[in-house]
This record gives sequence, structure tokens and C-alpha cells, in this order.
Amino acid sequence: MERFYAAFNEIIEHLQKAKDNVNKEEVEKLIDAILTSKKIFCYGAGRSGFMARAFAQRLMHIGFEAYFLGETITPAMGKGDLLVAVSGSGETASTVCLARKAKDEGASVAAITTRRDGALARVADIVVVVLGKTKLVERESYAPFTSSFDITVLTLFDSVSAEIMLRKGVGEDLILERHATVE
Amino acid sequence: MERFYAAFNEIIEHLQKAKDNVNKEEVEKLIDAILTSKKIFCYGAGRSGFMARAFAQRLMHIGFEAYFLGETITPAMGKGDLLVAVSGSGETASTVCLARKAKDEGASVAAITTRRDGALARVADIVVVVLGKTKLVERESYAPFTSSFDITVLTLFDSVSAEIMLRKGVGEDLILERHATVE
Amino acid sequence: MERFYAAFNEIIEHLQKAKDNVNKEEVEKLIDAILTSKKIFCYGAGRSGFMARAFAQRLMHIGFEAYFLGETITPAMGKGDLLVAVSGSGETASTVCLARKAKDEGASVAAITTRRDGALARVADIVVVVLGKTKLVERESYAPFTSSFDITVLTLFDSVSAEIMLRKGVGEDLILERHATVE
Amino acid sequence: MERFYAAFNEIIEHLQKAKDNVNKEEVEKLIDAILTSKKIFCYGAGRSGFMARAFAQRLMHIGFEAYFLGETITPAMGKGDLLVAVSGSGETASTVCLARKAKDEGASVAAITTRRDGALARVADIVVVVLGKTKLVERESYAPFTSSFDITVLTLFDSVSAEIMLRKGVGEDLILERHATVE
Repeated sequence: MERFYAAFNEIIEHLQKAKDNVNKEEVEKLIDAILTSKKIFCYGAGRSGFMARAFAQRLMHIGFEAYFLGETITPAMGKGDLLVAVSGSGETASTVCLARKAKDEGASVAAITTRRDGALARVADIVVVVLGKTKLVERESYAPFTSSFDITVLTLFDSVSAEIMLRKGVGEDLILERHATVE
Repeated sequence: MERFYAAFNEIIEHLQKAKDNVNKEEVEKLIDAILTSKKIFCYGAGRSGFMARAFAQRLMHIGFEAYFLGETITPAMGKGDLLVAVSGSGETASTVCLARKAKDEGASVAAITTRRDGALARVADIVVVVLGKTKLVERESYAPFTSSFDITVLTLFDSVSAEIMLRKGVGEDLILERHATVE
Repeated sequence: MERFYAAFNEIIEHLQKAKDNVNKEEVEKLIDAILTSKKIFCYGAGRSGFMARAFAQRLMHIGFEAYFLGETITPAMGKGDLLVAVSGSGETASTVCLARKAKDEGASVAAITTRRDGALARVADIVVVVLGKTKLVERESYAPFTSSFDITVLTLFDSVSAEIMLRKGVGEDLILERHATVE
Repeated sequence: MERFYAAFNEIIEHLQKAKDNVNKEEVEKLIDAILTSKKIFCYGAGRSGFMARAFAQRLMHIGFEAYFLGETITPAMGKGDLLVAVSGSGETASTVCLARKAKDEGASVAAITTRRDGALARVADIVVVVLGKTKLVERESYAPFTSSFDITVLTLFDSVSAEIMLRKGVGEDLILERHATVE
């Protein structure tokens, strides 16, 4: 079980470093965009998508009209709407493609990515850079591929939600009220 | 390609029989429930679930607050809401379980099923019986297992949508307006 | 309920016309590709996606290694694999984008679409044209937007499955054996 | 942005406490069950489901036959198979229902939950208790409802994956090889 604890510790340490590495202005821009947009669409492929879904659900819980792209009842996107797109590499085909389509439809795009120079960041209005696994870390890393990025993104999303709850004066009672009851 | 055409024909014939077999009063009740409910939740497992998703999406397109159970942004269900639950056998574990939970939360349940005596129908307020594959048909059937039921359910849902569009005075332009633009 | 029956009848008539309109050689090519590919990936956005999921599930039931693009456990695609992509308009952003990526990875693409000159068809190795709602029909149509296309695609997929079951000597007992038991 | 940092710190501290709180024997049992089962099915509703999907995908990446319950190509479950079910409260309707069905079909169930006395734990063969938000913490907590549990579960799953990779002699190159290429 040594490796289990080594990976667990590495993830905690990564979160600490990622927090110190957060660009406060970038996160402020993301929060402002969420607070001032009409509808908020979230997207990501694979594990990035699960983190984006968790964010979309939390945004719904705290009172936003939020959606995950590609689900059953996702409506039209347009001017005044925001797409929050997650891709570690910033090169995932569907994510980049849908971000471009969102821009074509007049929406704004916020990229959550490790790479400021990736295709996703280049198409985005707001870029929040999240510390991923670096080549150096990889050599002696125990946490499997992308885990550190994914968990950091989820932590960042939930911390953004906490900040938004404060600014909107929304408490956990609203989450309880809106949380799915039949699931 | 003989079997391809035999199955295609069998499905068309099944649809014809299923249409003649539709209980008009049952479908009327379903339509009334949809028109008078606050939120409409759809559910089904497996292929029944894909048909239920297609219905939830169409209901969203024509102006309802509709959801598919278990997706990211599905909110709380309660009094005044409707669950449309699809199960050919009427015994699918999650479907029966969620229908019971919906009743506990005060919502109404409409069952779309082949069996009026199944567990799902027994928990439901409205039962729309849809012709499935009978034992007799099975012996000489070419369309694979449940295909006839699934396609009939989808046709019934889209015909219900057409009727609702007429009653609400909603045209295809609204569908175009609400249809996902970034997908 | 007049509109309900009008739409139901229109869908049945559309299926009949669509069957007569099927290009046998195109469907043969699709069947051959499925029988000779290593893995089969299905994709479509919105309602096209629900039809594609129903096909992927049926292919799994009758013994193929089949996936729906974007779901949790979908693995790498490459040479020898097939992507079955569904888009009525043939212009859906994610569908065209993923079809191009599939080609880049060395896979073959089969397009199921109403338009032989659409972006999806142009990237595809195999094109199965399915009769959609024509402008002429639209003027006096009762079935809502894309319903006729979707139901035809599902019927075509299930008829293709019937033909494949015959060629592989697979019966409904295999479907029962592989069908999800916990759902 | 004070609340953002407060929540971020709280999540990191929670992870530290949750790690110290991990029952090593319980996690060992989970790892053994994964290594010796034929197929591994994961499930959870809502955010627990996103964490369970991330685990299912990682298990697929490192060579297991893994599925998420309710997705398109999820096959039959039976004797020799394992269901990993996640529910913070341990009372989520679909999760408890599907865990019971899994037992009926002869599979083993591992519960990931905060409550050893919950309905899910009572039906399970293996119970891994994960530290959730306690009443005491709630009073002065900044991270929104269930966030700490969800992020801890994901960290635990990725640390379990790291341990399993070591025991199976599997490296990140296998993840890269199996990771979706068209997404």
C-alpha cells in the first residue's frame, strides 16, 4: 500500500502547488463571466468532462441556468452565453471544435487548461491555466496520468462555486432544495 | 439482403398494428398530464432510455421544462411534476425503483410499457400500453429483440409531440429556435 | 387526437418510402464494413446520437466490440476500426470534427445522412443516404422536425442488425445473454 | 477571492484528514476484489457518478474490463463480477437498488460511502468508509455541500489505481495506448 499513500500524498502536494500557482486575475475573470452570463454551458472530453459535469451540476444547484454540452436537454447557445471548456492538453478535438462553434454563435469561451499556447486557449476569451503534471514530475510521479490535473480542476471549480455562493448570498440550503431528489 | 428487407417490413407492419392497438384514452391522459405538469422527467434503461431521451429533448424543443433522470443538471422532483417511465417488460430494476421514489416525492408517474400487470404499471398513475413482440410473433420474427417496441415507443412519442404542438400552437420554428446550436 | 394519428400515419408512410429509397449497395457496404472491422464506434449529436447509441448497444448484444464516442470506457480508435456517424444535415460540428479525427487516426468512416453533398459525407468512406423530410413534405407535415429521419435511421439500423445476425448465425439467445442484467 | 482560497484550503485539509482516516484493510480488500474480478462495474448518481465514471475509465486505461452502469454498451453482470458503488449518504435510491440487483445476479458489491450503517453499506461485501463533511465542520465550512467527499473519493480512486498499476506492472504508456484518440 506504499504506492497508494505515495500517490495520495503527491495529489495533495500538487493541489497545494496548484493553488499557489493560480492566477487570481484569471479566476476573477471566470467568476465575473459566470455571474454576468445568461446561460452557462460546460464541456470537456473524458475525465475533463466528468469534472466539467460536476461544475455544471453545482452551478445549477446554486441557481444558474447551466448545461453540459451534448446532454439531452441542452438548448441553443448564443450571444450573452458562456462556454466553460476543460482540456488539459488544450488540443482535444471535440473540445476545440465546440469552442470554435460557440464563438461562431456569439458566445464567450473560458478555457481551463494547462497550456496557454494550446488550440483551446487561442480560441478562448478567458484562460485559466491550471498546473498539470510537468515532464520533470512525471519522471518520479506515482499518481496516474492526468489525475493531478483533473483533481485540481475539480477543486478549483468547487472553490469558484464557494466564492460565487458568497457573492450571490446563496447558502447550502439552496443546494439541498435544487439537488435531484429522484436519482 | 433478404433479411434486411424482411425486418424493415416487419417493423412497418408492427407500427401499423401498434397504432391500431393504441388506447386513445390512455394517450389522452398522457397528453393532459404533460400539458398540466410543472416539470416533466423522462427515464428508461438501455434502449428504452434512448427513446425516453429523444422524447425529453423534443419536449424541451417545444417549450416544456423537461429532463432525463440521471443527467447532469436534472433538478429536484416533487408535487405537480410528472415522470414518464419507459420499460418494455415493466420490470427493469432502476426504472421501477425511480418510479417508486418519484411517487414518494409526490410526483405523478406515466408508464410506457407492454405489460399492464408489470411492476412499473402497478406503481403508475397513467399506463400507456404499447404493443411489443408477442411470443407468437417471436417464433417467426426477423427484427431483433425489443426493436419493434422501441421504434413504436419513439413513433408514439413523436406523434404525441405533434398533437401537443397543435394544442399549444407551437410550430417547427420554435424547435429550430431552441434546438442545440453547439453540438 | 387527429394530429396524433396524422403524425403516426405520416411516420409509417415515410418509413415505407424510405425503405423503397434505400440504396441496397450502400447498405451492403455498411454491413461488410461492420463485419470486417475490429472495433465499431458509433456517434451522433442530439437525437441522431440516441439512434447511434441504440445501434452501438445492439452491435454489442450480437457480439461486436462496439462503443459510443464520448462515453466513459470508449478506448483508442485506429486502423481497422470503423466509425458509424449519424447526422441528418451532415453538418453537425462535433460529428464532422470527430469523423475527420477518425480518418486522421486511420479508421474508416460510414456516414448515415440525408445529404450526399454534406460535410460528413465528403469525409466518409461509405455513405448511406436516408430519406429525410423534404421541403415539399415539410409544408404539409405533422411529424415534428427530424422525427421521420430519426425513426428511419433506427429502423434501418435494426434491419441491418437482423441481416448481420443471419450472416453471423447469431440468434436472440445471444442478445439475452449479453443484455445488461443490472440496469 | 477570500472565500475561493478558504474553500481551496479546506478541501486540501480535508484530503489530509481523509487520508489519515483511511482504513488500510478496507482499501486492501477493494484492491484485491478489483484484481480478482472478471468485470468491474462502477456506479454512482450525480457527482458521485462522475467520480465513479472517472474510476471506470482509469480501470479501462490500465487494462481492466470496466464499465459504468447505465451506459450504452454495459453488458450483463454476474458471478465473479464486482460493482463499485459510490454514495456519500449511502441512501441514494438508484445506487442502493442497483447494488441489490447486482447481489441478486451473483456479483460482489464494494460500497464507497461516508456511512457504515447506510443502506448501501448493509448490502455490500466490502465497505470503504470515506470521510465526509461532518455536522461540526458544516457549521464553519466554505466548500459547498459534498465537494469534500467527491474530491476525496476521486483522490482515493486514483491512488488505488496507482497501487494497482504497481502490482500489475503497468505503466503510463499503457494508459496512453488505451486512452481515447477520437474524442
